[in-house]
Amino acid sequence: MWKYFLFLCIGSVYCEYKYETKLFKVPLDHFGYQRNETFNIKYLVNDEHWDSSSGPIFFYTGNEGQIELFAKHTGFMWEIAAHYRAKLVFAEHRYYGTSMPFGNKSLDNEHIGYLTAAQALADYADLIDFLQGESMHPRYPVVAFGGSYGGMLAAYFRIKYPHIITGAIAASAPVHMYPGMVPCDVFDRIVTSSFKVANAKCVENIRQSWSLIRKYATNTTTSEWLHKNWKLCDPIKDGKDIDVLVEFLQSMYETLAMVNYPFPSDFLVSLPARPVRVVCQYLNETLDGDKLLEGIGKVLQVFTNYDGKSSCVDYKKGNDYGNLDASGWDYQACTEMIMPMCTTGRDDMFEASSWNYTKYAEDCHRKYNVYPRPEAARIQYGGDRLHAASNIVFSNGLLDPWVGGGILNSISKTVTTVVIIDGAHHLDLMPSTPYDPATVQMARTIHRQNIDKWLKEFREQRRRH
Amino acid sequence: MWKYFLFLCIGSVYCEYKYETKLFKVPLDHFGYQRNETFNIKYLVNDEHWDSSSGPIFFYTGNEGQIELFAKHTGFMWEIAAHYRAKLVFAEHRYYGTSMPFGNKSLDNEHIGYLTAAQALADYADLIDFLQGESMHPRYPVVAFGGSYGGMLAAYFRIKYPHIITGAIAASAPVHMYPGMVPCDVFDRIVTSSFKVANAKCVENIRQSWSLIRKYATNTTTSEWLHKNWKLCDPIKDGKDIDVLVEFLQSMYETLAMVNYPFPSDFLVSLPARPVRVVCQYLNETLDGDKLLEGIGKVLQVFTNYDGKSSCVDYKKGNDYGNLDASGWDYQACTEMIMPMCTTGRDDMFEASSWNYTKYAEDCHRKYNVYPRPEAARIQYGGDRLHAASNIVFSNGLLDPWVGGGILNSISKTVTTVVIIDGAHHLDLMPSTPYDPATVQMARTIHRQNIDKWLKEFREQRRRH
Repeated sequence: MWKYFLFLCIGSVYCEYKYETKLFKVPLDHFGYQRNETFNIKYLVNDEHWDSSSGPIFFYTGNEGQIELFAKHTGFMWEIAAHYRAKLVFAEHRYYGTSMPFGNKSLDNEHIGYLTAAQALADYADLIDFLQGESMHPRYPVVAFGGSYGGMLAAYFRIKYPHIITGAIAASAPVHMYPGMVPCDVFDRIVTSSFKVANAKCVENIRQSWSLIRKYATNTTTSEWLHKNWKLCDPIKDGKDIDVLVEFLQSMYETLAMVNYPFPSDFLVSLPARPVRVVCQYLNETLDGDKLLEGIGKVLQVFTNYDGKSSCVDYKKGNDYGNLDASGWDYQACTEMIMPMCTTGRDDMFEASSWNYTKYAEDCHRKYNVYPRPEAARIQYGGDRLHAASNIVFSNGLLDPWVGGGILNSISKTVTTVVIIDGAHHLDLMPSTPYDPATVQMARTIHRQNIDKWLKEFREQRRRH
Repeated sequence: MWKYFLFLCIGSVYCEYKYETKLFKVPLDHFGYQRNETFNIKYLVNDEHWDSSSGPIFFYTGNEGQIELFAKHTGFMWEIAAHYRAKLVFAEHRYYGTSMPFGNKSLDNEHIGYLTAAQALADYADLIDFLQGESMHPRYPVVAFGGSYGGMLAAYFRIKYPHIITGAIAASAPVHMYPGMVPCDVFDRIVTSSFKVANAKCVENIRQSWSLIRKYATNTTTSEWLHKNWKLCDPIKDGKDIDVLVEFLQSMYETLAMVNYPFPSDFLVSLPARPVRVVCQYLNETLDGDKLLEGIGKVLQVFTNYDGKSSCVDYKKGNDYGNLDASGWDYQACTEMIMPMCTTGRDDMFEASSWNYTKYAEDCHRKYNVYPRPEAARIQYGGDRLHAASNIVFSNGLLDPWVGGGILNSISKTVTTVVIIDGAHHLDLMPSTPYDPATVQMARTIHRQNIDKWLKEFREQRRRH
């Protein structure tokens, strides 16, 4: 175990991972020839441990954000690189970070249309072909890694390009969350159960809080009290502000459940270890009136100002996941990544809210001048119809609301699953810490066993041909 | 065997296959949202034998031409439909036949860019999803069939969409003919060997003819003799005309080898049974001078006027395969379907001609304002790196020059091959005739055994889930 210790980086302490930053030229459109522009995607490389004669390439299929963020938080790849004598590559997803086809105009409606999973995967396929020296018979086995949307991409990469990659570790990948696949309230039911695990009273208090917040927010005096007590940057002026505030709070609870790691982390926002337990300590007895809202106010402070850098709670800043770049994702969620979300208020701790596809589609059309293709992902990637695929591990933590769209039962001998009972969102890919539960340590062991198997298989096949 | 007899259609006799012609709406661009137009592709359906509770769908992945042509010549599907209680579907490839995104302007440079294999496959995936009732758990097993480029599409369809189709019969699919995969002279070496099988003298005469043709064509008197004797529509006026005539003749021999069927056929052009043997009878002894060119002239007559409908040989009409629509294909060959071709004059019966990629690319750029992406097909489809694929049969006839880019050795237990020693271009998919060699009958039996296996597998999987 000693060798892992060298790489230990606990939560928000910056890990000293070293890499080179490179650029790779890709076509704007891999699937057509009408537009023949090219642009550069960014990728990070570390080959200090690499056996360049036949060592593997461990390839992170970048998701919605700057690739440096994922490189920093995917400690698992760094920790196993020396053992496997692997080259590490982290590829940035087009239209995120600095991998912009049209510079700072890339996200404009007239340029954003080439932001799709299929185009990003084709970028990665081209990049790996280049890293293999454009060989007919590549010498380096390639394993894809990804978490969340990056996990979906890792799985899809193996499904669509099995000749390019040998296997995929798809962590917390909700590949089964498209329309008609799972109930739309599954996500927030799991958020609620993650809070219930910490403290059942906490869930009851949050459930009771919504009507009280709306009551306080509509009265001038109590609204001003909320503004002050919660340190809101802006006062709550009208019904729209109330809705925005309520949405901000719901998103806060959802994020807290996602990043409920056993160590302090700045992955999405800066938070203490086990943040759900931390915030629930303010709501651990039956509260009402001012007391209840004071408790919620303390939760807000933990969520928005754990690092002490914020002077007020900017609840109007939108559904932006702190360190992630949400603008591109919002477009993807409006085109092919349609994942219906609703709440019942009965099986979850939120206000009831139905999934209204028509309204969703109209909102998307207003924003981006496109209508979603809700069936596109099912047709392109198959949901859970993965019997013909191979060499994919789907790992999911049961504390993570995204597990609701995850693959939890092994589909075949080579499309298998790992369930991490006390894991949050792709905890298994995070840097290891002394606080890791045994289940995530076990998950990482299983990942290594699968990687061993895939590398052996690749080498045997290569010998035969 | 009696049941097959009902469907017997020998060669050029028109088969009375009945189908409904339907339209299906597809997006212009499946992989991006910049262009949100839609258009209709055509498909043909016969469900007279279909068990609509759980019968299979046999799906022809249309290639470069009107789909009716392929429906007519893919007798194998028609002949097995009743036994399997199958629905037959023949889908027309975008930009061919009447499946035109921009009407009669579709092939203009400003509109043709969405003509790619990936887009066509995505059309087919959408169509099958529709035929399955857009179900999460489709009830009908789907088997893809295709010959030639259609065979490549059938194989690629199973590789990329294994959740949509259960297996693929890929007949005469040169999936391994992209740059760097096989020697560029393989195609014309096989043309030559197909002629040699008919008559070794024939090959020697053709090999000797080129310099004689060039000599005759450059002298006014003998050139006029050629014009008359060969019934050329246009006289041979200059060096360019000579090159065009030589190219026409080479293409003629290539086509004769491809469609060297044991029965009369009008598949590409109207021809007698075993056309290579028929034409070689005019070249079956050592000839020279007028005698040699008179022989070649007789070959020309068989090739261009077997049905007696042509008044002269239109050698300037270009490399158009009679019944196929070559204009779209020429564009595909200039973008992703790069298949290097050359001749040595040593191992084949043609003038030596090297493969010059730079010239090829510049010609493409001049015509279509695009440069080829010679590596695109290798990266997208993998050539012969198909170890992770399953349920594909690659069948190839050894008389067919395209066998040079075919998969001849089984890759795994589920990616297997059938070699038809005395078969021409996808003979196994053609309507059966009393003239069929035993090897093609055996190939069709193996196809049926594989289809049995795939349907059983699909049904077992469906029962389990």
